[in-house]
Amino acid sequence: MNVRVGVIGVGMIGQDHIRRITQVLTGGSVTAVSDVDAARAGQAAAGLPGAVTHPTAQDLIGDENVDAVLIASWGAAHEEQVLAAIAAGKPVFCEKPLAPSSDACLRIMDAEVAAGRRLVQVGFMRRYDAGYLAMKAALDEGSLGPPLLMHCAHRNPSVPPYFTTDMTISDSAVHEMDIVRWLFGEEIVATRVLTPRRTERAPDGVRDPLILVLELAGGALVDDELFVNARYAYDVRGEVVCENGTVALADTSEVTVRTQNRHGGRIPVDWRDRFIRAYDIELQDWLNAVAAGTSAGPSAWDGYAAAAVTDAALAALHTGERVAVTMAERPDFYTKAG
Amino acid sequence: MNVRVGVIGVGMIGQDHIRRITQVLTGGSVTAVSDVDAARAGQAAAGLPGAVTHPTAQDLIGDENVDAVLIASWGAAHEEQVLAAIAAGKPVFCEKPLAPSSDACLRIMDAEVAAGRRLVQVGFMRRYDAGYLAMKAALDEGSLGPPLLMHCAHRNPSVPPYFTTDMTISDSAVHEMDIVRWLFGEEIVATRVLTPRRTERAPDGVRDPLILVLELAGGALVDDELFVNARYAYDVRGEVVCENGTVALADTSEVTVRTQNRHGGRIPVDWRDRFIRAYDIELQDWLNAVAAGTSAGPSAWDGYAAAAVTDAALAALHTGERVAVTMAERPDFYTKAG
Amino acid sequence: MNVRVGVIGVGMIGQDHIRRITQVLTGGSVTAVSDVDAARAGQAAAGLPGAVTHPTAQDLIGDENVDAVLIASWGAAHEEQVLAAIAAGKPVFCEKPLAPSSDACLRIMDAEVAAGRRLVQVGFMRRYDAGYLAMKAALDEGSLGPPLLMHCAHRNPSVPPYFTTDMTISDSAVHEMDIVRWLFGEEIVATRVLTPRRTERAPDGVRDPLILVLELAGGALVDDELFVNARYAYDVRGEVVCENGTVALADTSEVTVRTQNRHGGRIPVDWRDRFIRAYDIELQDWLNAVAAGTSAGPSAWDGYAAAAVTDAALAALHTGERVAVTMAERPDFYTKAG
Amino acid sequence: MNVRVGVIGVGMIGQDHIRRITQVLTGGSVTAVSDVDAARAGQAAAGLPGAVTHPTAQDLIGDENVDAVLIASWGAAHEEQVLAAIAAGKPVFCEKPLAPSSDACLRIMDAEVAAGRRLVQVGFMRRYDAGYLAMKAALDEGSLGPPLLMHCAHRNPSVPPYFTTDMTISDSAVHEMDIVRWLFGEEIVATRVLTPRRTERAPDGVRDPLILVLELAGGALVDDELFVNARYAYDVRGEVVCENGTVALADTSEVTVRTQNRHGGRIPVDWRDRFIRAYDIELQDWLNAVAAGTSAGPSAWDGYAAAAVTDAALAALHTGERVAVTMAERPDFYTKAG
Repeated sequence: MNVRVGVIGVGMIGQDHIRRITQVLTGGSVTAVSDVDAARAGQAAAGLPGAVTHPTAQDLIGDENVDAVLIASWGAAHEEQVLAAIAAGKPVFCEKPLAPSSDACLRIMDAEVAAGRRLVQVGFMRRYDAGYLAMKAALDEGSLGPPLLMHCAHRNPSVPPYFTTDMTISDSAVHEMDIVRWLFGEEIVATRVLTPRRTERAPDGVRDPLILVLELAGGALVDDELFVNARYAYDVRGEVVCENGTVALADTSEVTVRTQNRHGGRIPVDWRDRFIRAYDIELQDWLNAVAAGTSAGPSAWDGYAAAAVTDAALAALHTGERVAVTMAERPDFYTKAG
Repeated sequence: MNVRVGVIGVGMIGQDHIRRITQVLTGGSVTAVSDVDAARAGQAAAGLPGAVTHPTAQDLIGDENVDAVLIASWGAAHEEQVLAAIAAGKPVFCEKPLAPSSDACLRIMDAEVAAGRRLVQVGFMRRYDAGYLAMKAALDEGSLGPPLLMHCAHRNPSVPPYFTTDMTISDSAVHEMDIVRWLFGEEIVATRVLTPRRTERAPDGVRDPLILVLELAGGALVDDELFVNARYAYDVRGEVVCENGTVALADTSEVTVRTQNRHGGRIPVDWRDRFIRAYDIELQDWLNAVAAGTSAGPSAWDGYAAAAVTDAALAALHTGERVAVTMAERPDFYTKAG
Repeated sequence: MNVRVGVIGVGMIGQDHIRRITQVLTGGSVTAVSDVDAARAGQAAAGLPGAVTHPTAQDLIGDENVDAVLIASWGAAHEEQVLAAIAAGKPVFCEKPLAPSSDACLRIMDAEVAAGRRLVQVGFMRRYDAGYLAMKAALDEGSLGPPLLMHCAHRNPSVPPYFTTDMTISDSAVHEMDIVRWLFGEEIVATRVLTPRRTERAPDGVRDPLILVLELAGGALVDDELFVNARYAYDVRGEVVCENGTVALADTSEVTVRTQNRHGGRIPVDWRDRFIRAYDIELQDWLNAVAAGTSAGPSAWDGYAAAAVTDAALAALHTGERVAVTMAERPDFYTKAG
Repeated sequence: MNVRVGVIGVGMIGQDHIRRITQVLTGGSVTAVSDVDAARAGQAAAGLPGAVTHPTAQDLIGDENVDAVLIASWGAAHEEQVLAAIAAGKPVFCEKPLAPSSDACLRIMDAEVAAGRRLVQVGFMRRYDAGYLAMKAALDEGSLGPPLLMHCAHRNPSVPPYFTTDMTISDSAVHEMDIVRWLFGEEIVATRVLTPRRTERAPDGVRDPLILVLELAGGALVDDELFVNARYAYDVRGEVVCENGTVALADTSEVTVRTQNRHGGRIPVDWRDRFIRAYDIELQDWLNAVAAGTSAGPSAWDGYAAAAVTDAALAALHTGERVAVTMAERPDFYTKAG
């Protein structure tokens, strides 16, 4: 079966997903696009044989030649668009964040529960990364024993000038919030933010790096270094410390070079270099699930949980205190964390 | 454009390519299959909506719903099938070896040259492996300087009982023969085979491991350890030594585990584990080239060169002497080694 | 010149230092021993040609055949013994802690300042470890830029049954307290202790692992995982994150083994395995300094600073709060941190 | 006991051993020196309290204040000096080569056997290197199974202008000849030399790199890349391939640096950087053995075996053929290879 996808939002991410569906993955095609910038939508459609443009997201969702919806619009627009897709009974892949507030996420969950079947997949692509998958497999295999704590680092070479300290929490750390829930199979119950010495590269008023501390329901602690002006590379690290040993993301340079008295390998230059395969596998998984009439990947609950933890972490950042996460009861509809 | 592929030979490799085209790659479909075992062909077709079976390879090649031909049959059948595809003017992907003798490869080249355009891609998938690609990029970048020698190892955990010493040359070492030509951009001009202590696991009459020595046109030497009963893993290694340093395939375990006083990572268990991505990328490259009306990847000349080196290496194995490679002039049609 | 050493305290550490001086290092001999357990002192002396025993530390210090004093007694006895050595004008090497309270350390500093020359070296052997030395050299070289934060881990396979949570701070973490001051060239101004999920191996009432957070005068933060029942190995880790990159202690297994689908190396089994060379170099440095009439290594100020940070960290552990370090002004006599 | 050492030859190596005995090791002192350059001998003695100079090696050996003799003179002088030490009944440490010809080595063995006890230790310091010791321990432990082959590389950044191709065999490869005998516990029975493409840095008439192939008595093969103008580092590599896995010398950089999109570590710059600890441990082992009246380390037989293999390898280099090693029967006096 070929899944006919309608893409809402054709900025950088949206265009990349279009490329992915049409040139990399199997089982999907892009039949409709929509964007607040109509000209940009037109340009995107021009390169897609048979694709149409729609003036609004609502129109696109209602298009009978659209089987499933991919949302890569501005976060503020997500709630309305996801709700419309649910109302139309169409599967929807929504880039993170699911919605900018946890309340909005709750409304999405309510709608999905009312619809009676899982329609929403949230774009936490790290769950499809070979490194995190191997880490989870090592934890689940059991011989390392229960996990007690985890060290993470999330280093970007640089960020745009408009990037605020809050965005370090909401845009960068949100990936660790999700992956930690998934790895441990537990919810995050409290957060704390520590502020190391500021890098000279941070603009006035911006704190960078940060150390975010996450407490899990079972007591495990996670410290997450967030350094968005780290300059040297895009470097995502993680080590889970268990009763009988540890498992860590490895450096995976394809070759080792020996020259000028040094041996060494490459570290990715940016998120694309690091995670492009995860994005491919993520979206293929979505297409396969849509074609099969099933669901896969991070759910609306996962999107909600990340939003709730983000709220707490932002409060922790602003107050300097430990802040408990406020979270609704998980509906039985969403069977487990992660 | 959708490339309609006819698959000749639906044993393990053929079936894997069918899975790849239909479930992993984009831009292709399988519309016809053929096999000497008609029942097996029928089974394969049964899982492919709209696909037909043909009693002979010739029939399949003539099918007007077949745009391009994938040959995964027994090596002895390759020559006739490739020639038929060329005669039909259809692009053909042929698993290695292109043909079992260098003479047969020459006849294929003659036919392709006469046809006036490149139709043949040979299945040397290592050229699509991220490790070898990074190695070649490091060499081509230039700062390491000209390569002087290379160390290779090709270790299989085990081989089937019928695997002979000759097959270590013709089936295993053939991959290094091709990759070395491609990395160095030079032909191999002589070979030699050294015989280390025999593993206890080799059946009577079989020599394992071997050390194959390849001499390149520019004087560089390659030593290639071939150990097909290495037991511990499927481990392919390579280090090119240049004027200013070296570049080597790295271990690329996704995670590092620390337990029981050891840190370490995983080594692939078999060829599939190690090279599955290379197979995917190789065949996508072929589909893309067919769709674009161009050609890509290893050519018939590359298939011929590997056959010629194999001939010399087998003679070297049997005589214990250094044996020069006998090779025809390369037609201008095939513009460069590799 | 041969330095005649008197050893006070001949338990495990004291005996190891005697072995070191007599069988590994150059330029020293052990001429006198003393221990609260007179029989143990006698046994130790019996293996040392020409060595005598003294009933008290005071007697040993006064022995004219003792040029320099090595204190490996119980921590509670250190103050009196170090003060006596200073009073006698004899160089003294004192195992950590310099003294069990920061007040006692202050009294030692006062005495040393009054004596007018540095006589005290404290046994923080990590400063002599090849790993930390290389890390410091990388930081001092400058191209990594100023350090912003550091991640540490201090994992013991196990500890004796009497080991308390407080001892994790005072006996284990004290090594990071010193090495961090030395690496950053700054004092620690505040501490905090976080408590991850408890290992099942910790006895009732003991918290393990801990995460100790140290704040440096310049704003840098250090998180130090302390896990004394880590089981899998004795594993000391550290990564300093700087403006332009990071430097981390490496795994330094002498060989890599490839077997059973894994590649990997050894992690030390205990502190001796990890740091024995550092102890050797530390004590040789002391002997050399004594022979030259100079001083070397960690000073009484360093011992005091570690004690002051330990006080704060214990308070942080007990209160769960951030606790500022209370520290006297550094006398000009001790020219710089570390 | 203090071993009073007389040092013959106070060039770079001799001076380094003097420094080692007087400033690093325990249990030895240098009481006499001798050199063909009397002024140089005088300078060396001037820095050694109580040391005398002797006009000839013979005089030094006869000095009653010399308990043991260390020979660091020109190789051509070794035979006479070692024989004189044996005649005097004094233990002698002789830098490699034991003697420049295998015949000379035989005469030394005859003299030692006649003397009735082992007096000679040859300076193959690699047997004291932590890497090779760990490799041997891994082989001897047994789980890797019997070794079948070995890959070695011996890369020097550069060599002096007078360094000939023959010296690559006699001065560089001799280290692998010895270490391979020791690791495998077998004699080398034949050699072969292959000649890769010449580096542009080799002077006219010099072949560099070389590949030396060694055949062991039990059939195992060793390929040894010798590259004395490798420029990038001093890099000694080795991997033994066994029935159940492999063991290889590891890179042992103390720290890993992450900067400019690369992670990596240091490779030694020269032999001193790589093997200084092995030299220390080697000579301490000798001093301990002398003090104990026993013997240790590589024997005269080992020196002879290396000379015999060197003879064969030089012939192999000059003829391009496989050359069998001609070796005398090993006297029972020397109980086993290595």
